[in-house]
Amino acid sequence: MSLAESTLRSADTSAPLLPALADRWSPRAFDPSIGIDDLTLRSALEAARWSPSAGNTQPWRFIVARRGSEAFNTIVERLAGFNTVWAASAAVLIVAAAEVVDEEGKELRWATYDLGQAVAHLTIQAHHDGLHAHQMGGFDAEALREAFDLGRYVPVSVTALGTLGDADALPEPLRTRESAPRTRRPLDEIAVVHA
Amino acid sequence: MSLAESTLRSADTSAPLLPALADRWSPRAFDPSIGIDDLTLRSALEAARWSPSAGNTQPWRFIVARRGSEAFNTIVERLAGFNTVWAASAAVLIVAAAEVVDEEGKELRWATYDLGQAVAHLTIQAHHDGLHAHQMGGFDAEALREAFDLGRYVPVSVTALGTLGDADALPEPLRTRESAPRTRRPLDEIAVVHA
Repeated sequence: MSLAESTLRSADTSAPLLPALADRWSPRAFDPSIGIDDLTLRSALEAARWSPSAGNTQPWRFIVARRGSEAFNTIVERLAGFNTVWAASAAVLIVAAAEVVDEEGKELRWATYDLGQAVAHLTIQAHHDGLHAHQMGGFDAEALREAFDLGRYVPVSVTALGTLGDADALPEPLRTRESAPRTRRPLDEIAVVHA
Repeated sequence: MSLAESTLRSADTSAPLLPALADRWSPRAFDPSIGIDDLTLRSALEAARWSPSAGNTQPWRFIVARRGSEAFNTIVERLAGFNTVWAASAAVLIVAAAEVVDEEGKELRWATYDLGQAVAHLTIQAHHDGLHAHQMGGFDAEALREAFDLGRYVPVSVTALGTLGDADALPEPLRTRESAPRTRRPLDEIAVVHA
């Protein structure tokens, strides 16, 4: 990636952001030859572990699969559409599952909200450590739940983690998308400040 | 807070974490005399704005109320139990609402998950900037939705933001809780790694 492209990828923000937040983005081009060392992977998982949750319920579970493992292939096969094409190059795939009901069958209202936070902490730590992350919603959740015997835990996202790869190796239309600028709604559309 | 207490509050982690993640915790003691400057508050909101979401739907809305504003009091009055006691000392309260259905009434499946991520980004930026954050689930969501005319957006959390205050000023049992060590399940209970 050139410097110009790198700049394009940084958030167009009206106030300073922590680099791990400003420069974070979700690529599809991962380097299929590079793995993640144990300590860096553990840092990402510890970040998720120490995330806050409603009443400290910690309503999350993570299936972490390194490229080359049987579990990795099991996950790739259950992804949808284009995800199967690019995600197979990631170093690690992580199924994040939410405990939507507790042992007594009572709904845990903040389970998916809390899981989102835990994955956010995980991805921010990973970006801080030089990795990139791309979360996916396109997969067969029920098939993943069965494959990994997740019981009451429902898969909500699959995160690809790895080292940024060569965008030119992606097929179209993924290749074009890879260099599109990051966009968001204006701040005043999403937040109202009462002073 | 003494150095010993500060150490107690840092995550007991098996791998290095970004300080904004390791040292982040959710206090109830906020300094009622200190506010948040505009730029720091804007950084926190920009962090939420640049958070990822399914298909870049950005299914979130934030009602941000500074202490002393009418909106702040409106929020405090709709909190539950002990939250009304301590949260009134926060510099800012933020109602985070999820767009659970789109304009055509179609369910947005990842709305609360994505909202959790956006609030995580917000709180991490805030901690990085020397603030503390405490998210609450205890409040009357329907009353908040009506009070702020949120329509299809459903309040999922209220976050107190501010500067750490004097724990001794808290009533019991909040005072005792404030110095309790942070705890989490062991990593191998929440994550399975397939190598």
